[in-house]
Amino acid sequence: MSEFTKPSAECSMWPGETGRLIDKARSEGVELAWDRLARQTPQCNFCEMGLSCAKCVMGPCRIIPGLDRDKGVCGADADLTVARNFGRFVAGGSAAHSDHGRDLVEVLHEIGTGKTEAYGIRDEEKLRRLAAEFGLKSDGDARQVAKDVAERLFQDYGTFGPGLAFLPRLPKARLELWEKLEITPRGIDREPVEMLHRTHMGVDCDPVSLCLHSARVALSDGWGGSMAGTEISDVIFGTPSPCKTKVNLGVLKEDKVNILVHGHSPVVSEMILLAAADPEILAEAKNAGAAGINIAGLCCTGNELLMRRGVPLAGNHMMTELTIVTGAVEAIVADYQCIMPSLVNISQCYHTKFVTTSDKGHFPGAERFHFTPGNALDLAKKVVRLAVEAFKKRDPARVLIPVEPVEVMSGFSNEAVLGALGGTPGPLIEAIKAGAVRGAVGIVGCNNPKLKQDHHHVTLARELVKKDILVLVTGCATSAMGKAGLLVPEGADQAGEKLAGLCRTLGIPPVLHVGSCVDNSRIMQLCAVLANALGVDVPALPVAASAPEWYSEKAAAIGLYAVATGVTTHLGLPPLILGSPLVTNLAVSGLNDVVGACFLVEPDPVKAGGLLDDLISRKRLALGLSA
Amino acid sequence: MSEFTKPSAECSMWPGETGRLIDKARSEGVELAWDRLARQTPQCNFCEMGLSCAKCVMGPCRIIPGLDRDKGVCGADADLTVARNFGRFVAGGSAAHSDHGRDLVEVLHEIGTGKTEAYGIRDEEKLRRLAAEFGLKSDGDARQVAKDVAERLFQDYGTFGPGLAFLPRLPKARLELWEKLEITPRGIDREPVEMLHRTHMGVDCDPVSLCLHSARVALSDGWGGSMAGTEISDVIFGTPSPCKTKVNLGVLKEDKVNILVHGHSPVVSEMILLAAADPEILAEAKNAGAAGINIAGLCCTGNELLMRRGVPLAGNHMMTELTIVTGAVEAIVADYQCIMPSLVNISQCYHTKFVTTSDKGHFPGAERFHFTPGNALDLAKKVVRLAVEAFKKRDPARVLIPVEPVEVMSGFSNEAVLGALGGTPGPLIEAIKAGAVRGAVGIVGCNNPKLKQDHHHVTLARELVKKDILVLVTGCATSAMGKAGLLVPEGADQAGEKLAGLCRTLGIPPVLHVGSCVDNSRIMQLCAVLANALGVDVPALPVAASAPEWYSEKAAAIGLYAVATGVTTHLGLPPLILGSPLVTNLAVSGLNDVVGACFLVEPDPVKAGGLLDDLISRKRLALGLSA
Repeated sequence: MSEFTKPSAECSMWPGETGRLIDKARSEGVELAWDRLARQTPQCNFCEMGLSCAKCVMGPCRIIPGLDRDKGVCGADADLTVARNFGRFVAGGSAAHSDHGRDLVEVLHEIGTGKTEAYGIRDEEKLRRLAAEFGLKSDGDARQVAKDVAERLFQDYGTFGPGLAFLPRLPKARLELWEKLEITPRGIDREPVEMLHRTHMGVDCDPVSLCLHSARVALSDGWGGSMAGTEISDVIFGTPSPCKTKVNLGVLKEDKVNILVHGHSPVVSEMILLAAADPEILAEAKNAGAAGINIAGLCCTGNELLMRRGVPLAGNHMMTELTIVTGAVEAIVADYQCIMPSLVNISQCYHTKFVTTSDKGHFPGAERFHFTPGNALDLAKKVVRLAVEAFKKRDPARVLIPVEPVEVMSGFSNEAVLGALGGTPGPLIEAIKAGAVRGAVGIVGCNNPKLKQDHHHVTLARELVKKDILVLVTGCATSAMGKAGLLVPEGADQAGEKLAGLCRTLGIPPVLHVGSCVDNSRIMQLCAVLANALGVDVPALPVAASAPEWYSEKAAAIGLYAVATGVTTHLGLPPLILGSPLVTNLAVSGLNDVVGACFLVEPDPVKAGGLLDDLISRKRLALGLSA
Repeated sequence: MSEFTKPSAECSMWPGETGRLIDKARSEGVELAWDRLARQTPQCNFCEMGLSCAKCVMGPCRIIPGLDRDKGVCGADADLTVARNFGRFVAGGSAAHSDHGRDLVEVLHEIGTGKTEAYGIRDEEKLRRLAAEFGLKSDGDARQVAKDVAERLFQDYGTFGPGLAFLPRLPKARLELWEKLEITPRGIDREPVEMLHRTHMGVDCDPVSLCLHSARVALSDGWGGSMAGTEISDVIFGTPSPCKTKVNLGVLKEDKVNILVHGHSPVVSEMILLAAADPEILAEAKNAGAAGINIAGLCCTGNELLMRRGVPLAGNHMMTELTIVTGAVEAIVADYQCIMPSLVNISQCYHTKFVTTSDKGHFPGAERFHFTPGNALDLAKKVVRLAVEAFKKRDPARVLIPVEPVEVMSGFSNEAVLGALGGTPGPLIEAIKAGAVRGAVGIVGCNNPKLKQDHHHVTLARELVKKDILVLVTGCATSAMGKAGLLVPEGADQAGEKLAGLCRTLGIPPVLHVGSCVDNSRIMQLCAVLANALGVDVPALPVAASAPEWYSEKAAAIGLYAVATGVTTHLGLPPLILGSPLVTNLAVSGLNDVVGACFLVEPDPVKAGGLLDDLISRKRLALGLSA
């Protein structure tokens, strides 16, 4: 940590599509996140170090350790202040994922109770498998099974029930450790609520205890809300299987009505996809002069559709503003999370309609459609028609689609991966033992305008695959990998000899796309499957995780549930904790003695690759394998 | 609002017990909250105005409206930034109350399932009444009824159930309004979790929508978690009825082992009370040279024991540090909320044992006893013995108990008040119509070192009672009223002629103590009873609320649920929202058009009294009564 240098805000020229569109935005007077970051720099040192507190009106307080202001009005010191702030930060991220998961469980319940026609069960086998896993009746009417599974998961959101349904997936040793540490999550909603309580003035005043509860909160996400989100999305919309599609801004079509679905949930976007195929609306699009209607994804809603439907992905977090700047987007249809409020203003600089669809995500100035499972298809048609109308107002002179799209493979759910290997983890374990796959690293998370976009994702991935380490990718890291040619079987050329051989044999890329950011639960589940098959606890596995360009509270929650599950996690930027030596040391080393994993903070992706490679070597040696 | 002046931090001499103990602390080198406030002043303007955001690592951001930094990196402007911060502030307070309520429901469930011997049902009639109210079987075995009532309330903490059990207490018009505004609370844990989600970057970007959801969160507290806390505490520990006791530091006894129970829950403190009466331990105390064991309360744990058991109250929030400075306290037994972390350090300057009892409230350096309903009495005995041991180390030369205690009456639960009036609200309504009680104001909430301690509580109460306005008091306002002689029937001398006459007839004080801060739910319920009896909605009632010296997130939640229920609420200090004209205007006037009530911010308690008197006059005239 000592050599950590704060990344500078780089607003200079960017290569490729990003640079050309930044130039276009500048020439058109459009303000972007990079501009706002430059104006926000220097950022507040107190907030950055986690040393400010505005949780009561005796304050606000700013802590300066070692000086006159070493305590807040209540008496909280630097360690406590940082731990309180970090606890709420993690709670914010966990709550976001888990509330997203709740939406899926609610849709499943509406299916089960016959209250929606728009949605159904695409993977009935998985539904019945989940029912059996939960000890519920898994045969008979699928609707009844859907209702029962939904109500079982509703219990996990409650405060009184049989315990989180997915926990038995974990190795027994891990569950026993969590019990001993008192961090077994008891309820998906309960843990973040208790974190709010504990961080109220005068409740939990022990920074270590707060950090442990942060882990519990994160686990309620990773093994609760997020996992419910993934599993039930699979049931409703289908479990992903390998598919091919394209990424980058080149997926926008100059001659078509372009609709971008943005946010995190598949619930609305799947309906938009359906509505865009409506022959009547297609005819209207033709009448408007368009060759058709083109749906592409942004952010994690994009990942959801990419994984399951092969819908092309226009870009990740830092591309969301720039997609509008292309002048070729008729509508952005947003659900929730990571949707920059600036998008409304930027849309207003073009002919783009900015549409919101969730009752919990309003944006002043947006076109608001409040989707429910009951009205979803009807509203989706209205939204698509709005985009068709907008197409008539597109100014061809302002259109810039600067690149050709790049091919990618996606759809690597655990079911698909293990299914392709004969249905058991055996072949994967053999490949690990033989060193064809020395280990695996999940590269996940966002972009951050403080870092050169995608550079850290791609550099780290290349460092790893060339050392025969398989990379699993989710979220905003995905399009970065795609653009770098790592999501096609030919990406094997960038891998080390052994991994390349395996990829060529199986016809898979060295970086496997496993989904959106809630789908990091797939990686957790895969770790548990491997650990159980090997008869070890998770920290013994030659695996790690990394969020090289993270920005959001959700990423912090993901990192912490990974660490608490036993997966050491690299971060390209530190959380806002550096004001506390105690919390920082716990994060980057102390947690090793507690949960068998910790955080690594390293802004240089080449160095990070080296650290993760070393870690995997050590884990392999401890398992009696070659380094 | 325009004339609002920031109250200065007054660290100069204070009158009475406070001043003498501040002097003692200074002479003994003990640091107090006033000292820390002085060193934290000037406070950060950005945090104070609600204009800083550290919810992601693209930031932290500081918004300067109208200037170069008018937006955060994500594009959030001042209004959105303030609304996000306020949303989380209210969620923190609501979560604290509701998580406290959960603890009571869990104890009730343990009673119902026979898992605890230490706790039982003290008010079985209320238990059966609640069961009947909830539509459950209310006769038969009391344990079964307890289990059923607990499980019904567990549903309210969940995400899937029949709707909050207490909502039908409200006037139909209020419930319809909340439905229309989409602010009916759906689940006690769900609403704060959804607030965390909505305030994550890129979810709810509409400040108005965030403020409305803040109201929903607060209502999940007031009509959910807090009300469960109050009602179930009554069931387990008895519904309060009028009793007499004493307040201020004079309740400490120089010749006895003094144990102070601090925090908010009655669960542990009731056991401490029981243990302190154990003949064996009393004998040990005598052997240690003490004349006995004296239990007194602090903060809201103190209010709980004051209301139900007549246990004396040593002081409120700003007295908690000073009680230790008396040198006469053998142990502070703390559960959770408003327990300044400084108390551990101050205890270490004396012979005082600082004991924590909750698994969610740890303090480094404290003696930690993890209470559960199963071990509660055993641990309580250990804690009391710890205090007896500490007595031996007390230094008589350092003891200063600067005042004689003051008499107070307490125990005015709704059941007690309405019961004394013949069981119906009729006589109270008649008194209101006749002007003997022109209206009622609940004075609630904390102290704040920015304000002269207790002065604002007492001045406002005097202004009101002299205008024949009945005052109901809870929380930290209680001991202020007690010291001012307003909590005894003789306090009628400070009231207007008509109110004084009524008080003398009934033998009650002009200020009625109705409980702890969760017990503000009693005031909400009373408003609903009166509105239903009059056939009006709550805003029609000649009532108001005030938190003249508030400091905590809970107080903000209380204020907001009062306003959303239709009770205009005065605040002696503004929340951290002044950076947003939109949010500020909504709070202090716009909400009137939405929910029929709003906030009044006025630091001068005399002026505040005038504003509330005017409000009550207007409400009376609108009801066709004399002003």
